[in-house]
Amino acid sequence: MSEAISPLASPFPAMPPIAGVSLRIARAGYKDWAKSQQERCDLTYIELDKGTAVAGVFTRNVCCSSEVELGREQVKAGHARALVVNAGNSNAFTGYRGREAVEQIMEQVADHLECTMAEVFVSSTGVIGVPLPKDKAREGVAAALEAEPCSWEDVANTIGTTDTFAKGATAQAMVGGKTITLSAVIKGSGMIAPDMATMLGYIFTDAAVEPAFLQELLSTANRSTFSCITVDSDTSTSDTVLAFATGKAGNALIHCFDCPGADAFAAALNDICRNLAQLVVKDGEGAQKFIEITVTGAVSDESARKVGLSVANSPLVKTAIAGEDANWGRVVMAVGKAGEPADRDKLSIGFGGTWAAREGLPVAGYDEAPVAAHLKGQNVTITIDLDIGTGRATVWTCDLTHGYISINADYRS
Amino acid sequence: MSEAISPLASPFPAMPPIAGVSLRIARAGYKDWAKSQQERCDLTYIELDKGTAVAGVFTRNVCCSSEVELGREQVKAGHARALVVNAGNSNAFTGYRGREAVEQIMEQVADHLECTMAEVFVSSTGVIGVPLPKDKAREGVAAALEAEPCSWEDVANTIGTTDTFAKGATAQAMVGGKTITLSAVIKGSGMIAPDMATMLGYIFTDAAVEPAFLQELLSTANRSTFSCITVDSDTSTSDTVLAFATGKAGNALIHCFDCPGADAFAAALNDICRNLAQLVVKDGEGAQKFIEITVTGAVSDESARKVGLSVANSPLVKTAIAGEDANWGRVVMAVGKAGEPADRDKLSIGFGGTWAAREGLPVAGYDEAPVAAHLKGQNVTITIDLDIGTGRATVWTCDLTHGYISINADYRS
Repeated sequence: MSEAISPLASPFPAMPPIAGVSLRIARAGYKDWAKSQQERCDLTYIELDKGTAVAGVFTRNVCCSSEVELGREQVKAGHARALVVNAGNSNAFTGYRGREAVEQIMEQVADHLECTMAEVFVSSTGVIGVPLPKDKAREGVAAALEAEPCSWEDVANTIGTTDTFAKGATAQAMVGGKTITLSAVIKGSGMIAPDMATMLGYIFTDAAVEPAFLQELLSTANRSTFSCITVDSDTSTSDTVLAFATGKAGNALIHCFDCPGADAFAAALNDICRNLAQLVVKDGEGAQKFIEITVTGAVSDESARKVGLSVANSPLVKTAIAGEDANWGRVVMAVGKAGEPADRDKLSIGFGGTWAAREGLPVAGYDEAPVAAHLKGQNVTITIDLDIGTGRATVWTCDLTHGYISINADYRS
Repeated sequence: MSEAISPLASPFPAMPPIAGVSLRIARAGYKDWAKSQQERCDLTYIELDKGTAVAGVFTRNVCCSSEVELGREQVKAGHARALVVNAGNSNAFTGYRGREAVEQIMEQVADHLECTMAEVFVSSTGVIGVPLPKDKAREGVAAALEAEPCSWEDVANTIGTTDTFAKGATAQAMVGGKTITLSAVIKGSGMIAPDMATMLGYIFTDAAVEPAFLQELLSTANRSTFSCITVDSDTSTSDTVLAFATGKAGNALIHCFDCPGADAFAAALNDICRNLAQLVVKDGEGAQKFIEITVTGAVSDESARKVGLSVANSPLVKTAIAGEDANWGRVVMAVGKAGEPADRDKLSIGFGGTWAAREGLPVAGYDEAPVAAHLKGQNVTITIDLDIGTGRATVWTCDLTHGYISINADYRS
């Protein structure tokens, strides 16, 4: 964790344990962490009871890491016994040497648990292009297997890199007369522009859910949550979100939408995904303001999402918000460059519930005072009505500040 | 012109006059310019002799200005008598009121020259969403019509907004035994991510060129010059490049590639376009370094251009260069997110002629010293070999610095 905490940070929530999930952390020493972090752990080991279902979504970046390549195959079988997360080295773009390091970890844990390697999931996050050191991984995993159980907050801190606060979320739902619980952690702050999946996020539930249906629910939730956030338009090579269901809650197995409680479970999963996605934006590198952009009247929901992300990724819009400047002209520009259907003369744009422009024209007698007051706050809303259809989407981003430049012009050295 | 001049600025070149072109500037007072600029002119009037051919390329931003909408129609006729450029107000997103202001200018000049309105081209640049004030435009045009002729440098200064230096370029070619000359000016610094066209650029030549062929040559040159630069990935609502050919050089009319001197003219036009495009990048908002990115081995030239622009638009790559950090992992990421065919395990990346990664792996025994030295300079080259085809492209951008944030978080106020 970095020293300067995001002004948008929230306290770590009280997170209940999940039956069938045990948490451990250790210090592998993958990188020379800053002085204040020299004692930090950087290897997370999470053990899952037999019978745990798994689903996952992964980055579309074609230069993805071995961890992502392997994980994409592993989720197809739908079963998991363990998760290992390495922080400080993403092991991406490291060729066969990187892949060997991942397979070594899988084998070490599989031997310990007497399971198959395919049931051991591995993620890594950090600098690109340095093969994960095998000796450090071996000793780190050995230490984690011996470690005392730890808390969710310990895990959230251990998977972080440039994150400035620990990020977790929890939810409950009634499923067929049983209370089921979801607890989740996530890391991410820069290189955030998920393309169908994002950063490193892990969701654990005691619900009994059939793997293929869990995958369907996770993929659906992903489309309106992780795929609707951006910090800097840069899509990571390691993005991964995994959901694990241990089945210990005692509910009848959920395998389709007709099952009792399927809707409630899907809603809880969606809530937790949105919560996690928003936490990543709130820890966006250099973020001072949280921006929610709602697009209505598009030709389709997907078109609305693309328009929203075009605005959310515009450096000129993001710097205007940083400067608390209601520069809606830049929003017009970003709508126009999105490559999606739009009619300039029907376009309306508002901030904080006040329209600045309606139907292609500045609002007559537009009073900027309420908008200026809104922009001084930490939470900024932008509303865009295209008025040519019924498609809609909401996306989330943060402003672009000097903090982003400071963090990224001096990251590797 | 702003007060802090780009460190990448070059002196304004000695630019020859073009027969059949006369230059005038005036002060319309479109905006309250900063104190140091209060005396600056902001209206440019360029008169063209009868028989001048014209061609143009314009922004693809669907929220384009009336100037762009009208200009796109006007170039189809191929003839021009005058150009008016307003600075300080882009007149974009101003509906029917903005359009009326443009038509008033066209009519005022057409009356003066006894030509058609369609022969009078108008461009405007500056803040979006404020209708161009008609009274100021009328008085400004009247003053310009009465003004003494001025220099190319005066024109380059008068069309600028956030530009920090005057940008012009000139070229000559032998066409059928006659020397023909091209002189051109351009403005642009932010909101630069041309989509088939860009910013405001004006090229004047005394060559005799048939309008349709001039358009073909300009469109072709545009694809490898203006369409290959980016400052901040934001595509302006007003981008326009116009080429005017007065025909005074005495060459036989060029109307196809078989005409004597057509190749020489095309090469000179291409040179001047690349020169102008690079000048815009060198005046990129906050730019400290000029970055040339060459992509080879792509499946097509267009695919190579898209990969190049994905790298050129990546905030993480641009901040790494600002920090003089040879962080080639970020280049890998940006290649991978481009959405174009690429094979991680064939990818090679170099800086300043030194390979950092070859065929998907860090180079064994990679010595960062020459790369570090290269990155300390003002001109940075990045080479990306995809090794899956024969497509290639070169694109140009600048680094992303605190200067960009400072300029854009405090632009409108």
